[in-house]
Amino acid sequence: MHVALDGNGTGSISGIKVRYAETDQMGFVHHSNHIIWFEIARMKLFQDNGIDIKKIEEEGLLLPVLSVEAKYISPAFYGDELNINAYFMSSTNVRIKIQYEIVNDSGKKICSGNSEHAFISRNSRNLILVPDWINKKIVRINKEN
Amino acid sequence: MHVALDGNGTGSISGIKVRYAETDQMGFVHHSNHIIWFEIARMKLFQDNGIDIKKIEEEGLLLPVLSVEAKYISPAFYGDELNINAYFMSSTNVRIKIQYEIVNDSGKKICSGNSEHAFISRNSRNLILVPDWINKKIVRINKEN
Amino acid sequence: MHVALDGNGTGSISGIKVRYAETDQMGFVHHSNHIIWFEIARMKLFQDNGIDIKKIEEEGLLLPVLSVEAKYISPAFYGDELNINAYFMSSTNVRIKIQYEIVNDSGKKICSGNSEHAFISRNSRNLILVPDWINKKIVRINKEN
Amino acid sequence: MHVALDGNGTGSISGIKVRYAETDQMGFVHHSNHIIWFEIARMKLFQDNGIDIKKIEEEGLLLPVLSVEAKYISPAFYGDELNINAYFMSSTNVRIKIQYEIVNDSGKKICSGNSEHAFISRNSRNLILVPDWINKKIVRINKEN
Repeated sequence: MHVALDGNGTGSISGIKVRYAETDQMGFVHHSNHIIWFEIARMKLFQDNGIDIKKIEEEGLLLPVLSVEAKYISPAFYGDELNINAYFMSSTNVRIKIQYEIVNDSGKKICSGNSEHAFISRNSRNLILVPDWINKKIVRINKEN
Repeated sequence: MHVALDGNGTGSISGIKVRYAETDQMGFVHHSNHIIWFEIARMKLFQDNGIDIKKIEEEGLLLPVLSVEAKYISPAFYGDELNINAYFMSSTNVRIKIQYEIVNDSGKKICSGNSEHAFISRNSRNLILVPDWINKKIVRINKEN
Repeated sequence: MHVALDGNGTGSISGIKVRYAETDQMGFVHHSNHIIWFEIARMKLFQDNGIDIKKIEEEGLLLPVLSVEAKYISPAFYGDELNINAYFMSSTNVRIKIQYEIVNDSGKKICSGNSEHAFISRNSRNLILVPDWINKKIVRINKEN
Repeated sequence: MHVALDGNGTGSISGIKVRYAETDQMGFVHHSNHIIWFEIARMKLFQDNGIDIKKIEEEGLLLPVLSVEAKYISPAFYGDELNINAYFMSSTNVRIKIQYEIVNDSGKKICSGNSEHAFISRNSRNLILVPDWINKKIVRINKEN
């Protein structure tokens, strides 16, 4: 891979409008959707830092989720516009950890969380070391911040 | 493919319990879920008639959806247990048409619909003729019924 | 309801970015998501024409889906940016019909469809006539176009 | 509420068949679905222990999710049949904690996790103490096990 990493280790998505289909009969958003919103921000984080998931997959690598945690602080409602921030928390040779915050259009924090990821080979499903250029970048980001 | 077709052209799934996550803020099931339930019954229909989607995909074929129609007759509620029936309606050289009915545990019809499908090659995304053994089978089923 | 209708009978959503979670193992978007995208455009159509679903629901009315049809013309892929247009097709005393078109960022049409809706009372679940101001508006839009 | 608690503090759902729609383009189940499967097992756990979510909601109470954690141990594939177990981990005056394990039809553990829940009033959205009969029951279950 010959992709330059230009980002600063954060990714931010604004204007995610809550979909009617994301609500449940409690009258607000079902908690599984926040996990999908994390993913949207994670993909933006990767993209902003020169990590192109489409290319990674074309090269036969996958980046599945090892773990996810979410704390639901306040409900999200149909029509809310959300800002989602993602940050690299840490990276080792085998896993990348990312942190998330979701804030609504009134500035209220509605959810925070994190996820861990590893690279695997699509064919063998074996674990692959985090590519060195990604690992170095994330370590450096964490030192700087 | 050397799979025998043993079914009678119908597939039936019983005991699909409505999930909480499938409801929306109207207090009943969001209408996109019926499309997913159709798929569950379609997969059962294929399986019951010797058409194994996993094998088809391993051979490099895909069977995407060309069209879908659904009529929502009565709402489905969290906790309802649904029966879903699928039938082969017709088959041509290039497309298969399937019909669906969803009935709840009180015997009330909640939804009917249909979908059309074609085989494509995973790599080229070109249209493939419906494999002869599948087409013959479906034509025969329709004559018999 | 004392809401002025200012729209022209069309609603358009641009920049709906395909989510990773919306793909399936065929490698492109699962067909149930287009139904949810229709809804996003429908809500925008209502909003642009002064029909506020939140207010309607607070007044004890619901606007469920009676039917939906979708034709899948071309696959949508992770990362695609979609434009979704919605138009009022027709309105009677009891139902509203809406048409949809989804186009990707290369200008390729990927899906078209329509849906029908009726007003019901949240409590009784009885059918309610389409409020006169909505019906008149839609009839007028259809005459003009 | 005059519901007797007859369960033993565990709930188990077997035969959850992985839906095609639950896969993503990695070729296995998207990680947001495990959160929904946890919910299915949680609802079974509540039901088996005499806690009826439908009745609770009719009484104006909601039981939203405060937090969720999932560890993804092995991928789940389309067609897999899953067993999901849920256990009461602990209960305080204000929150209930539940643990989950998902095992596939080969006996392989694919996911474990937990979630925390609190009762709130539907109208005021204020926190409500965990009803005494539920709290006592859960404390007793934990002593016995």
